[in-house]
Amino acid sequence: MTKSELFSTVIKEPEAGIKEKSRRYWDALAKPIDGLGVFEDIISRMAAISGKLCPDIGKKAFVIMCADNGVTAEGISQTDKSVTLEVAALLGERKSSIGRMAEGYPVDFYVYDVGIDSEATPGGVTDKKIRRGSADFLKEPAMSEDECFAAVSVGIEAVKSLSDKGYGLIATGEMGIGNTTTSTALLCALLGTDPHEATGRGAGLSDSGLARKIQVIEEGLLLHTDFEVGKEIASRDEVLRALRCVGGLDIAALAGVFIGGAIFHVPIVIDGLISAVAALTADKLLPGCRDYMIPSHVGRERSMEKVMNHLGLRPVISADLALGEGTGALLLLPMLDMAMSLYRDGTAFDDTPIAQYERFER
Amino acid sequence: MTKSELFSTVIKEPEAGIKEKSRRYWDALAKPIDGLGVFEDIISRMAAISGKLCPDIGKKAFVIMCADNGVTAEGISQTDKSVTLEVAALLGERKSSIGRMAEGYPVDFYVYDVGIDSEATPGGVTDKKIRRGSADFLKEPAMSEDECFAAVSVGIEAVKSLSDKGYGLIATGEMGIGNTTTSTALLCALLGTDPHEATGRGAGLSDSGLARKIQVIEEGLLLHTDFEVGKEIASRDEVLRALRCVGGLDIAALAGVFIGGAIFHVPIVIDGLISAVAALTADKLLPGCRDYMIPSHVGRERSMEKVMNHLGLRPVISADLALGEGTGALLLLPMLDMAMSLYRDGTAFDDTPIAQYERFER
Repeated sequence: MTKSELFSTVIKEPEAGIKEKSRRYWDALAKPIDGLGVFEDIISRMAAISGKLCPDIGKKAFVIMCADNGVTAEGISQTDKSVTLEVAALLGERKSSIGRMAEGYPVDFYVYDVGIDSEATPGGVTDKKIRRGSADFLKEPAMSEDECFAAVSVGIEAVKSLSDKGYGLIATGEMGIGNTTTSTALLCALLGTDPHEATGRGAGLSDSGLARKIQVIEEGLLLHTDFEVGKEIASRDEVLRALRCVGGLDIAALAGVFIGGAIFHVPIVIDGLISAVAALTADKLLPGCRDYMIPSHVGRERSMEKVMNHLGLRPVISADLALGEGTGALLLLPMLDMAMSLYRDGTAFDDTPIAQYERFER
Repeated sequence: MTKSELFSTVIKEPEAGIKEKSRRYWDALAKPIDGLGVFEDIISRMAAISGKLCPDIGKKAFVIMCADNGVTAEGISQTDKSVTLEVAALLGERKSSIGRMAEGYPVDFYVYDVGIDSEATPGGVTDKKIRRGSADFLKEPAMSEDECFAAVSVGIEAVKSLSDKGYGLIATGEMGIGNTTTSTALLCALLGTDPHEATGRGAGLSDSGLARKIQVIEEGLLLHTDFEVGKEIASRDEVLRALRCVGGLDIAALAGVFIGGAIFHVPIVIDGLISAVAALTADKLLPGCRDYMIPSHVGRERSMEKVMNHLGLRPVISADLALGEGTGALLLLPMLDMAMSLYRDGTAFDDTPIAQYERFER
């Protein structure tokens, strides 16, 4: 995908007529009006996205993007960057945290190496390595424009291929030591957020570690962007510049997944901060992508709420999650199954002696 | 169960040593410290409750208490009270909303009639009918002290029997038209909350319906209790009086379920407002019951957050649910399964080349 191809892509709105029909369908079920709350809205949005009153989410996939971040050289993480490769190897065998959590749950994992700093790609992981880790953004841009587009393309292609295979719902995950630093830097660039306010402890940082992380993010922003607190980025060229200069290959690839969801009409589940910043980036590059996103949780990272509010999305899980890999998105899936089960097989008021509830304007 | 038997029951604390051991066990798993956030704490609490480092929650049950409320005569609900019987019949056949949602999910339903206003108990529902609906609390106390204790006993006995059958986790649900009115009245009595602040629209009320509901609750409180805004009830006799005068048979029976959980060391999942007020009542009758409770969601009803804060519990789902039957508690269960799966089968740092994260004091 080239820049002109990306910028000329038009995101269609999900089908409003089907959403409205779906809302009326919910109201006809024998239960209090809006009884399933936010879940009713999610199902109706998925109906509008798929263009079917009853969306088929039986077949679900996870797309997990793995990459290393050169900025780890600046001491912004408690762990060594070699952990990216080690966890990616576990992901490939379904033995990492998300694999254990999904034991017995029907979801397929597609793990991509878009930039692990290793010679080879581990078993069970798809080799789409663009380079061996991004560059340290305190030294140079994290990646070139070509590399950035290559990563975005991997995400778009992944969704195309999964959509062709009949997956009706795709959830996102990532692995990359240092990626709460890159995603926080990118978030600050996009929304004009003060790094002091936005930066969290990632997988676990001491007070001095946190101070160093904030400093690195500030320096990176000043080096590569026209960052000012309170100034949101407006132009797509500036968004791209921020993504490739202070972002990461994993974030770019996930942004591609969200763009792919909007192009191929597949709902994409957002996980934690890294995934959320990728989602925000996608919507800033191609406005309207947000309509194809399903939020899952507000994690422990401080800026999640801000990103969700900006996208106008309301996550239903609030549990201080900070595990990564897509684990928060995974937790949402069985709840969506249960909501779908009621939607699909629920008893209608018409089939009971019960009078339908009346909807009052509030 | 008599009053003296109840008041002489002592609730043992869950095993603190096991909780501590469980916390260390979480930290040894190959993932960021506290990565699963609140879920880690829930699993560790369940370990302490069951007295086993690895609690067995494979076998799960729902206890759903159904009863009518005489106060429906005062026009506080959009629907006719006959709906209680109709939905209870659907519950017995697993065809109500929660039954549909649980399709394919391994949980057993135990539905009790503790006071449906009907001659017979529907099929699939256990007949423990104490009376045909409570009395209209604007006319007389909702129930006598004996009836109240009988309902509490049904709940305690239910947990005893399920614990004997090997269930490791019990979730609560209810069905009873008018029970957001009774539970809100009871909540106001217990915590001294202003009914204007506490009262929600239940399954759906117009503005005038809501005003009437508030008026009924206020009158009931003044008639039967020493209610004052800001004055929390301290004595157990007053708690009992509030429960039997403005509460309901379903609430009393659910309070018994929470008491039973604390006596028989089984974690009990709280659902929405009615279940939460029953939980609060149980803890006010027998302090310490709260340690055996697992919160699930903050529903649409306005007072849920207040009750949860009072109990020191933090629900992980926030989705404006207002369906009842136990549907919010059901949504939590597969997430607990996933957290347990990681806890039980997760890869330890010792089995990987990855160095363990260090825990910093915050």
